[in-house]
Amino acid sequence: MNAVIQPPASQVVELPQPLQTWCGDSLPGVRLAYESWGTMRGRGDNTLLLFTGLSPSAHAASSENDPEDGWWEAMIGPGKPIDTDRFHVLCFNSLGSCFGSTGPASRNPESGEPWRLSFPELRVEDIAGATRAALDVLGIERVHGIIGPSLGGMSALAFLLRYPNSARHLLSISSAMQALPFAIAVRSLQREIVRADPVWDEGRYRQDRQPVSGMRLARKLGMMSYRSPEEWTGRFGRRKMDHPDPGFGPRYEIESYLAAQADRFVGGFDPNCYIYLSRAMDAFDADDHAGEGEQPLKALAGLASAAVVGVESDILFPLHQQRDLATALEGAGVATEFHGLPSIQGHDAFLVDNERFGPVIRDYLAGI
Amino acid sequence: MNAVIQPPASQVVELPQPLQTWCGDSLPGVRLAYESWGTMRGRGDNTLLLFTGLSPSAHAASSENDPEDGWWEAMIGPGKPIDTDRFHVLCFNSLGSCFGSTGPASRNPESGEPWRLSFPELRVEDIAGATRAALDVLGIERVHGIIGPSLGGMSALAFLLRYPNSARHLLSISSAMQALPFAIAVRSLQREIVRADPVWDEGRYRQDRQPVSGMRLARKLGMMSYRSPEEWTGRFGRRKMDHPDPGFGPRYEIESYLAAQADRFVGGFDPNCYIYLSRAMDAFDADDHAGEGEQPLKALAGLASAAVVGVESDILFPLHQQRDLATALEGAGVATEFHGLPSIQGHDAFLVDNERFGPVIRDYLAGI
Repeated sequence: MNAVIQPPASQVVELPQPLQTWCGDSLPGVRLAYESWGTMRGRGDNTLLLFTGLSPSAHAASSENDPEDGWWEAMIGPGKPIDTDRFHVLCFNSLGSCFGSTGPASRNPESGEPWRLSFPELRVEDIAGATRAALDVLGIERVHGIIGPSLGGMSALAFLLRYPNSARHLLSISSAMQALPFAIAVRSLQREIVRADPVWDEGRYRQDRQPVSGMRLARKLGMMSYRSPEEWTGRFGRRKMDHPDPGFGPRYEIESYLAAQADRFVGGFDPNCYIYLSRAMDAFDADDHAGEGEQPLKALAGLASAAVVGVESDILFPLHQQRDLATALEGAGVATEFHGLPSIQGHDAFLVDNERFGPVIRDYLAGI
Repeated sequence: MNAVIQPPASQVVELPQPLQTWCGDSLPGVRLAYESWGTMRGRGDNTLLLFTGLSPSAHAASSENDPEDGWWEAMIGPGKPIDTDRFHVLCFNSLGSCFGSTGPASRNPESGEPWRLSFPELRVEDIAGATRAALDVLGIERVHGIIGPSLGGMSALAFLLRYPNSARHLLSISSAMQALPFAIAVRSLQREIVRADPVWDEGRYRQDRQPVSGMRLARKLGMMSYRSPEEWTGRFGRRKMDHPDPGFGPRYEIESYLAAQADRFVGGFDPNCYIYLSRAMDAFDADDHAGEGEQPLKALAGLASAAVVGVESDILFPLHQQRDLATALEGAGVATEFHGLPSIQGHDAFLVDNERFGPVIRDYLAGI
């Protein structure tokens, strides 16, 4: 059984050279899965490059080859806010993930064995680096715009910091220039919970017997950071389940909701990939790319415009970090618009609050 | 080895009758450990009854018999905000806890075996009920005031709802009338993490081999709900440890801080007591004590005054819940003052932000 699950519509780019990682390793035989929508003009003149959050595949939207809804189905398609009648949209499964791309769950081509924990340390800069190399293979020197939600926004910043002239416009959504200690604490504890599951076994679990208990607990903790207390108060209140557990199991609807979310997650995402990508988010800091006293995003000065969109109830990428990002972009001389949306769904609002996010994304893209 | 650790200064009340629990069980041989400071006048005319949060013992402050600092050392003592030159302060270790009082870690007097999970379901109402029975033994019909932080505030409400004339004044600190879904989610996940530790073994762990891994993880999650992102950003930022772990272990100071907090907790608190008390907090709802359409706290109408103190950065007992509590007290006709403090230390601020809490507590008590 192969740990890497490739969605039906995805294609694969094989990098011609080993990838030199940000921490100094050499990664041979890198493959990146991707999907695309719309028709490319020229050499990416109308291309929007979409970086993903931690857990999604490249299947952001349905297509002829895969009619199943994608993770951003409401946003991408003909006439939708990311309008594929006009734009060519390109989405890669991140390096380090497990949906067709090279990562801890794929095989080391030199040994033929799964990488597992022998995979080199992954940084957000490597997600950017592998994507740059894949664009070279596809003959795309510069895309029209980059869209990055959550980790995708960090990947977009890393991409632009490393390859400043690779895009004209940037749309950052619910992201940040660096991880702050509360977010580090959440992710660190998630990783520790997975590692504490005896089945994890230092990453040597079998594909048909994964550390399901640890992954379920980690996902529940994730949901607490992805949504918001306000949303849950309105949505669940103190309603009890029809059949509350007489012991220490779930009694309230909020508990059964979290259990259902955990059920949906486990089995789909490889635990080793999860902890590699999670650690990479903690390590990211755009300031590392600037010299002492420099404008942190001065490398992005070539952007024609940027938009930073965030949500008031986001506790993982709080709005003040997104204001800081907008300020830093302006400090680099980039014409930047900032939108702090009053969504109550927290960090995940960009996936569910289509009424608020749709118009903001549509309007920004209409102007670029 | 006995699972119940009794602090040196604590005394014990033995209840003369089995305790009838809120869920309908009968609990024989209940003992409650307590400490006191100051001199009682009359039959409790100057007594302040202090209910504790989830994890503390009755050792709230040092005394001749136990000079070690208590958990609220800065607040209780001669000339301190809770002034023991004037007041007699009485603090019980809650029923269900493990510092001298009856709970899952103590022995069933009928079988001689530790209760473990055979302990009956515990409710906040039972903490109140056992305390009321203990006061009867001590000959105290009515105390001057009740002080309750966190779970202690819920216990205070349960006490006053069940025994309306047992106190003249109420000081509620960082508490609430009921658990909302975010707080339930946090505690439910903490319990699940402890239960997922194989060493827990359905509560049958040996006293010298406890589910330390689960308790450590649960405590770290607890700390995320007890403090605040703002505090951690200012206190730790992105500072790295001197010797960051090359693998998936701690690299940032926030991670080593959480590890140190977890180290301090494990071994000191019994895991079964922890999950019993945690579940009791989820179940508490002051509204359960009122009929349809009634003022929820009308049973408290006999109070001469109340003060509700909370903190803006509290994510576990958010300030809006404390405003609701103050409003409900006013609705019951109680003269109530409300203080929303701008502390950045979150729920735990009452334990550490003495500069803000001290004057508020001192001033309220000076007026009663």
